[in-house]
Amino acid sequence: MSKPSSKPRPTAATSPAKPPAHKAELEELRVQIDTIDRQLVELLAQRIQVVQQVTKVKQKHELPTFHPAREENLISARRAQAADAGLDPDYVEDLFRTVLRHSRVGQLDTLGRRGVRPGAKVLIVGGRGQMGRFFADWLRRSDYDVRILDREDWPHVRSLAKDIDLCILAVPIDLTAEVAAQIGSQLPPTCVLADITSLKGKPLEAMLRGHRGPVVGLHPLFGPATTTMDKQIVVVVPGRELEQCQWVLDQFTVWGNVLVETSAAEHDEIMGIVQALRHFATFSFGQFLHSRGVAISRTLDLSSPIYRLELAMVGRLFAQDAELYAEIIFATPERLALLKDYIKSLQQNLGLVERGDKAEFVARFRKVAKWFGPFSEQALRESTFLVEKLVHRF
Amino acid sequence: MSKPSSKPRPTAATSPAKPPAHKAELEELRVQIDTIDRQLVELLAQRIQVVQQVTKVKQKHELPTFHPAREENLISARRAQAADAGLDPDYVEDLFRTVLRHSRVGQLDTLGRRGVRPGAKVLIVGGRGQMGRFFADWLRRSDYDVRILDREDWPHVRSLAKDIDLCILAVPIDLTAEVAAQIGSQLPPTCVLADITSLKGKPLEAMLRGHRGPVVGLHPLFGPATTTMDKQIVVVVPGRELEQCQWVLDQFTVWGNVLVETSAAEHDEIMGIVQALRHFATFSFGQFLHSRGVAISRTLDLSSPIYRLELAMVGRLFAQDAELYAEIIFATPERLALLKDYIKSLQQNLGLVERGDKAEFVARFRKVAKWFGPFSEQALRESTFLVEKLVHRF
Repeated sequence: MSKPSSKPRPTAATSPAKPPAHKAELEELRVQIDTIDRQLVELLAQRIQVVQQVTKVKQKHELPTFHPAREENLISARRAQAADAGLDPDYVEDLFRTVLRHSRVGQLDTLGRRGVRPGAKVLIVGGRGQMGRFFADWLRRSDYDVRILDREDWPHVRSLAKDIDLCILAVPIDLTAEVAAQIGSQLPPTCVLADITSLKGKPLEAMLRGHRGPVVGLHPLFGPATTTMDKQIVVVVPGRELEQCQWVLDQFTVWGNVLVETSAAEHDEIMGIVQALRHFATFSFGQFLHSRGVAISRTLDLSSPIYRLELAMVGRLFAQDAELYAEIIFATPERLALLKDYIKSLQQNLGLVERGDKAEFVARFRKVAKWFGPFSEQALRESTFLVEKLVHRF
Repeated sequence: MSKPSSKPRPTAATSPAKPPAHKAELEELRVQIDTIDRQLVELLAQRIQVVQQVTKVKQKHELPTFHPAREENLISARRAQAADAGLDPDYVEDLFRTVLRHSRVGQLDTLGRRGVRPGAKVLIVGGRGQMGRFFADWLRRSDYDVRILDREDWPHVRSLAKDIDLCILAVPIDLTAEVAAQIGSQLPPTCVLADITSLKGKPLEAMLRGHRGPVVGLHPLFGPATTTMDKQIVVVVPGRELEQCQWVLDQFTVWGNVLVETSAAEHDEIMGIVQALRHFATFSFGQFLHSRGVAISRTLDLSSPIYRLELAMVGRLFAQDAELYAEIIFATPERLALLKDYIKSLQQNLGLVERGDKAEFVARFRKVAKWFGPFSEQALRESTFLVEKLVHRF
């Protein structure tokens, strides 16, 4: 404090004007890194320009957007180059998967607009609901002549349904059967009748009863907030005259969707688990956190990324449509029975904890682990990969 | 069929030798893309070489690996450049987050080895268990003098504990209190006593009773399969003379860990939810799938990526240590009470489904959604981001 200088930080006092040598050294290296990074972005911009030219050629010749073999060859070549250069091939693959996905989504934005049967007349029943509007938009972008039939439009049903090529039912689950019966008698015999409800058994039966022409059950596994169809799944349950429905399925493929075919029975059984039970369990967990007043943000501070991911799965449910979830959970008596069985199994497991029977818990755990088999190792790998993404992103 | 040519495909008949012009055009563009991609990998290799030079400078001057402000500036600059070049800034940020993470992990591999108090004597009680071995490895890499005390070594406890600077308890939860009492009397008064169990109340009490010197409770939120400490969380519960424990905490920071401080009471309450309840629910879900013989692979075919992610969270549990999960779930009477309350709340929700009371379900849903507040929108964003990763990766 006896020095005349007013500088408060003694570490800098020895050479007040000049920073230490290693600072300059680091600075010089950081400039080099910035130069490389700038070149990386320039190359990414160039790449997109070439991809846009590819898109034009594909558009002109009606070629598909997605070329799986080309993508895999590209990844293999870059992995090999990475290994030769002493880089981690997984790291390079990870980056190029992001680049390819971006390129695919960009191409779909242009190529995915192509209509398989442009000008065809499509009637969307329930077309003012969220999913109805979603499909109306996509169909219009692909040059279809889209008409909407909602509650208030039934007096005009005859003129709306006249000469239509496709009728899509986008109404709540519990109305689908009734609406199918009503609309069926109005449809031209060659018209394709399809629904997009998340249950397939009863709606499909009702459509087959209501309409004598081509029938197909569809279940798009995505919500109305989806901005790209790239690799989004649509479950297809054949009803009648599937070959007459093919153009509708082809339209989904052009948009970028992946189609998976199954029976109504298998669909409904699996969705009982995948949708009804999962949604019920997730809802209940969120509701339990609420009822105990758990401090969410504090649990996040004190948690591993995997819990953050688990909690994100709970939180995301509550950012979505309450009524849609109610419909899915309340849909059938089979679903109620499934939920009952689930809670019964929870109680049995609780019994182990009450009796302090760790040995039996461990035995059950190992039995299930064996049953899961290689899937659990794969799950560990996949979720660890994602957790890494979460750690560096948020 | 009157033509002399035997070619079966009429589309190619007009120019049998030459592929269509657009094929050559596409091929030419793909060569351009490959050239760009090769340059991208070359730049990534150059970047890593410069980062290695940065690492050497940091190592020489004992500078920290992680420089948050530098990372954020770098991201901002690349986002701005992307926007100027007509690229999506989120896309470019996504790529650079992966690049930075890789660079950080690579640097930690060298810089994270530095010992804060190299040569200090560390005794790991339970050092032959998974976590014990894990920390023994990390400490040895950082030049500590590591000794192991497991079940069979108690006859030599006096010589093992002689002159030690740090004693880490890495024994199962239900033994921690007992072991703390036994080892406490053997420790030099200046020795730091720490545990790494996932419960903090009782173990910390026992350590404070058993030892008169510095005490700190630690809970590393990661398992023994972790290959990098980068941003992995360690919960810290101060016991006594925290300043004497600081070098131990600093060692975690050098390794790349993030420290979060809390009280034993808050820790145990939150871990009841985050660990015991989540693990119980996840275990029970997996066990239920097993008991019903659900065809896992078929549910994956027919599912949205978000279910794949949820199922991965279930599967990953069963790839891990059954006994560790048993310990966590069976740890305290409070945890049993929590599980009981949880199942009670599930039954109440089941009541809604039984009565078909959709309106009440929707009302509860909205109440919880409101309580989650902005977190649920954020959760939707984060999990959607991750689902995109999952879609393009697996």
